[in-house]
Amino acid sequence: MAQLEAQDLAQAVVDRMADCADPRFKQVMTSLVKHAHAFVQDVQLTPQEWMTAIQFLTATGKMCDEKRQEFILLSDTLGISMLVVAIEQAKGAAAHKARSGVDSPTEATVQGPFYWEGAPELELGADIGAGNSGEPCYYHGRVTDLAGKPLARCAVDVWSGDGEGFYDMQKGEDAGMALRARFYTDADGNYRFWSIKPSFYPVPADGPVGGMLHRMGRHPNRPGHMHMMLSAPGHERLTTHIFVSDSPYIDSDAVFGVRNSLIVDFDAHPAGKAPDGRTLDTPFHSAKYDFRLVASA
Amino acid sequence: MAQLEAQDLAQAVVDRMADCADPRFKQVMTSLVKHAHAFVQDVQLTPQEWMTAIQFLTATGKMCDEKRQEFILLSDTLGISMLVVAIEQAKGAAAHKARSGVDSPTEATVQGPFYWEGAPELELGADIGAGNSGEPCYYHGRVTDLAGKPLARCAVDVWSGDGEGFYDMQKGEDAGMALRARFYTDADGNYRFWSIKPSFYPVPADGPVGGMLHRMGRHPNRPGHMHMMLSAPGHERLTTHIFVSDSPYIDSDAVFGVRNSLIVDFDAHPAGKAPDGRTLDTPFHSAKYDFRLVASA
Repeated sequence: MAQLEAQDLAQAVVDRMADCADPRFKQVMTSLVKHAHAFVQDVQLTPQEWMTAIQFLTATGKMCDEKRQEFILLSDTLGISMLVVAIEQAKGAAAHKARSGVDSPTEATVQGPFYWEGAPELELGADIGAGNSGEPCYYHGRVTDLAGKPLARCAVDVWSGDGEGFYDMQKGEDAGMALRARFYTDADGNYRFWSIKPSFYPVPADGPVGGMLHRMGRHPNRPGHMHMMLSAPGHERLTTHIFVSDSPYIDSDAVFGVRNSLIVDFDAHPAGKAPDGRTLDTPFHSAKYDFRLVASA
Repeated sequence: MAQLEAQDLAQAVVDRMADCADPRFKQVMTSLVKHAHAFVQDVQLTPQEWMTAIQFLTATGKMCDEKRQEFILLSDTLGISMLVVAIEQAKGAAAHKARSGVDSPTEATVQGPFYWEGAPELELGADIGAGNSGEPCYYHGRVTDLAGKPLARCAVDVWSGDGEGFYDMQKGEDAGMALRARFYTDADGNYRFWSIKPSFYPVPADGPVGGMLHRMGRHPNRPGHMHMMLSAPGHERLTTHIFVSDSPYIDSDAVFGVRNSLIVDFDAHPAGKAPDGRTLDTPFHSAKYDFRLVASA
């Protein structure tokens, strides 16, 4: 047979897909193989380094369970998750602009590893922060389409860590849900709820990805943010955060998720009457953010 | 902050390594990040495809245990293992040629996932094939340095599947070692042992990598081969195979490991007297291969 030399190996792998019945899969794998081989050639990867990589990937897989997704964390910390989000958003925005001439949907960001399916559906205005550490914060705003038409009955999933930056999923096997809920916008597209002002926090750094970050000389912190996922009938689902403008690490998010348009000033208020009529005996914050969703194609 | 757009994300990840204390790690990760982002951009990877990749990698990690290394299998089937071997061999050969003007070490190939530490040390001429399926085969040859000087007491680790292509490690949790041993060359650098003529076989295809191969339209088979790993004092360890020249799949090894110089004719013999004086009552084969090792740098 024709002997394969190092520089021919990538093409040989690609050629082996002659009988691949899925053109998109073939396209993706062709690009993956070429880039992976180019990387190995570029750095002249040694057998010892290759084995380190095998062991890293294996440990990363072993770390994954129902509440921990170390491969998502790896993708997040290498900026790949945000890249996928940005590409998808650009496609949606471009498609919309082609249809309407308008180009202003709310920006998306990473989902992160702490979304937990099945959070309680609560009435607008409910307080999901009570009983958790952190200063109270009132969140409110409106959900519209790109023309400004209010979207009623839009599902608004919200989740965050507590005032120390810990999510419910990080609090041991038996810990239940906390600081997460689903709300539905009212007839005018408004949403409102109480939670806490989220703290910055480190991504889980006790696994292989934490070791990688340490060796890269990087901190593992994310600036404070409230996760929000919006789903309205006839519109594309939006997964995003609102970021706390005065949070540490707002300029160096460990997962590269910050978008300027998602940075929000959290207003500080003394104890007393809140915007929704409630009276608080401690200082509190408020954060207002309006969302604009893209109609489904 | 300066907002990161999709095309800036890779550089932002690289810039975050400003405090990395390990120049080689920084070099490797910089290349990895740039190639990974270029791949995602190239194919405009969708969120659904990204999630499929996350699930694939997670399942690949979960499949790994003491006797199964699915990430090595992934690397093997994408030609990456062989690329790393080829790069390493080229470095060793180039270094040797620079010193001696000679360039003819025995070629290396992939180790594969079936090496099992601690195989029994046996006397030269022992039969490790008896009791296993497959036609008997007598293996013999000489180990020398590149100048042709015999290397005595060179450890020769050998392992293979049986006549149906199954390795001991694939035969259930309680199965012990079979068809593997360590021999040492005699004072003239000679080795000899009996085993079976190895069959072609499929790499383990019941896991995520098997699913990938199926979707790529590829067969999972390797041509028949005897694994051999040689370690002589003062010389670089050589991990290689000898391939059965008339085996199916010799032109389409699923892990791209075949080298022309490693293809060996297995001579067929009728029942009767063997080269080592033993008398067989069944037909048998013989395979002769001489190895040339590179002196340590």
